[in-house]
Amino acid sequence: MLLEATIEKIRPLDRSLESAAQQRLDSLTKPQGSLGKLEELARRVAVIQEKVPPRLGRNLLFIFAADHGVTAEGVSAYPKDVTAQMTQNFLDGGAAINVLARHCGIDTEVVDVGVDYDFSGARGLRNCKVRRGTGNFTRGPAMSRAEALRAVEIGIELAQAASDNLFLLGAGEMGIGNSTSAAAILCALTGASVTDAVGRGTGIDDAGLQRKITAVESGLTLNRPNADDPLDVLAKIGGLEIGAMTGVILGAAARRVPLVLDGFISGAAALLAQRFCPAVMDFCFASHLSVEPGHRRILDALGLAPLLDLQMRLGEGTGACLLMNLIEAAVKLMSEMATFQSAGVKEKLP
Amino acid sequence: MLLEATIEKIRPLDRSLESAAQQRLDSLTKPQGSLGKLEELARRVAVIQEKVPPRLGRNLLFIFAADHGVTAEGVSAYPKDVTAQMTQNFLDGGAAINVLARHCGIDTEVVDVGVDYDFSGARGLRNCKVRRGTGNFTRGPAMSRAEALRAVEIGIELAQAASDNLFLLGAGEMGIGNSTSAAAILCALTGASVTDAVGRGTGIDDAGLQRKITAVESGLTLNRPNADDPLDVLAKIGGLEIGAMTGVILGAAARRVPLVLDGFISGAAALLAQRFCPAVMDFCFASHLSVEPGHRRILDALGLAPLLDLQMRLGEGTGACLLMNLIEAAVKLMSEMATFQSAGVKEKLP
Repeated sequence: MLLEATIEKIRPLDRSLESAAQQRLDSLTKPQGSLGKLEELARRVAVIQEKVPPRLGRNLLFIFAADHGVTAEGVSAYPKDVTAQMTQNFLDGGAAINVLARHCGIDTEVVDVGVDYDFSGARGLRNCKVRRGTGNFTRGPAMSRAEALRAVEIGIELAQAASDNLFLLGAGEMGIGNSTSAAAILCALTGASVTDAVGRGTGIDDAGLQRKITAVESGLTLNRPNADDPLDVLAKIGGLEIGAMTGVILGAAARRVPLVLDGFISGAAALLAQRFCPAVMDFCFASHLSVEPGHRRILDALGLAPLLDLQMRLGEGTGACLLMNLIEAAVKLMSEMATFQSAGVKEKLP
Repeated sequence: MLLEATIEKIRPLDRSLESAAQQRLDSLTKPQGSLGKLEELARRVAVIQEKVPPRLGRNLLFIFAADHGVTAEGVSAYPKDVTAQMTQNFLDGGAAINVLARHCGIDTEVVDVGVDYDFSGARGLRNCKVRRGTGNFTRGPAMSRAEALRAVEIGIELAQAASDNLFLLGAGEMGIGNSTSAAAILCALTGASVTDAVGRGTGIDDAGLQRKITAVESGLTLNRPNADDPLDVLAKIGGLEIGAMTGVILGAAARRVPLVLDGFISGAAALLAQRFCPAVMDFCFASHLSVEPGHRRILDALGLAPLLDLQMRLGEGTGACLLMNLIEAAVKLMSEMATFQSAGVKEKLP
């Protein structure tokens, strides 16, 4: 019910507002268009908010953590326990995303949607555990359809419950093994070949890359996910954190809050969100182009162009964080710059 | 004397420090290399400071303003008075660079090195006026050799006088007509063709573009700047703000402070600085790739790769500002992230 109701609420943008936004940008003391993609960012936020200039507010990034049964196939360069250990690191403020979020003035919320570890008593962690990690999708479905739905609902609920003065939402994740699941989703939803979709993730060697390719092939062959049914795809070969990110994306669009994607894993979540509701993409911003080779294919399928290319491949929301900072800068430009008139600056020669 | 003494002080980097910097990065809780270009940025700052992790400190961006006599040839889309009007706008906090600098926590210093306007009494402006704008270089040299030297010295002195706890310096500018001068410098120093070097600047139309090409051709033919003598090039076809930026670049390198370039105009200043002292490039960071077509050629000649491509073409230091923010983030990552050991996170599988 929540999922359907959320999808119902998502309305495509009224693009006719773009000209009012551009008019404002063109009145500011700079040559027209000279702020390039920053102008595009500000314009889009204005259209999403239906307000020129847009309101600033709180920036919130969710970091969803969950484990993946497919790690049993030797698909990751890191042991599975790292999911729980890094989740604790997020809570302690020592991870890359903590440093970047502090630098950019972005709040983070760490959400356990399926880590195979008992965090009871951990301070600052939001416990939304659906189950202790997915099953190994080379042996059977990653999770049940009900669990997949629950993961998506968690994301929606969190987007809904976030404070009123939201400016931007971001989606990040942690889950050893999740680039294997994301690659499988990419294949299932777009028909990409397994070798094109699978990359080295956190840095697996050649033998591991081969195991990863085999695992994705097995998972697709065994489970036969139905591309027309995103919940089926999520349940059979997805991940709990991927489902939660899908939910946040849908929930943000329903609230008309811009949603900033991160890298390959959040991209897979966006592919699912797009299948639930194509109009959701109007509210999504691609932050950076990941080194993970399948990311380009995901962005192409989403119809999004990344703003940054810093050769990053970390996840956690690190790329999202950098773009959230840039979107905030873009909106400040739109709202704080003087106009030619107010500053007494002459306009372009006729 | 000051120029020679400054050049004397510039020493190439000791690249052997890179491995210690990378070792630190590799000890942090992330897959090795996964922060991509952010790791490169942090590593380079560490090598410049000879300190792992580097110290943070004050970020300071100079905005040098000056007028150009070549505007008489109809080479700009904006009237010449805009130089003075925008300088006032910088002081009033209404320009794009003000908004971005506030957003990024960067101090700005607005320096009049040659605006054709009497600012007496203007609050917050540093008066270093060498003369009220350059001469029209299609009729004769833009300035005398002594004036060119003075402009460079002003930049050096400002870099020297900036507070002790400097982390980064940035170079920005304002000067209607200065993309014509920068294009002429690009041609003189690299042998680029005039049509490749000249672009639309703030947005001139086809007829204006042709006038701009003609002006650069005339300036080069008439003045015959000597490519082996950067001061001669600066005097004959340069600009006062370009000279001051050249000085800041040299002064920053002499102090071992990383210097962040902006777009096409600061790139031309860096070309001059490189001719004064090739080792200066070790201390320079290219922020973004400008839309101005000659910028790519300048960066190639400098041997620098831009980190951002946001289709900007504004100048003022706007691109520099964005990269200064990113370099600060990169250094914070190096200094604030937990290590695998401190966070109790397992390392990569053998």
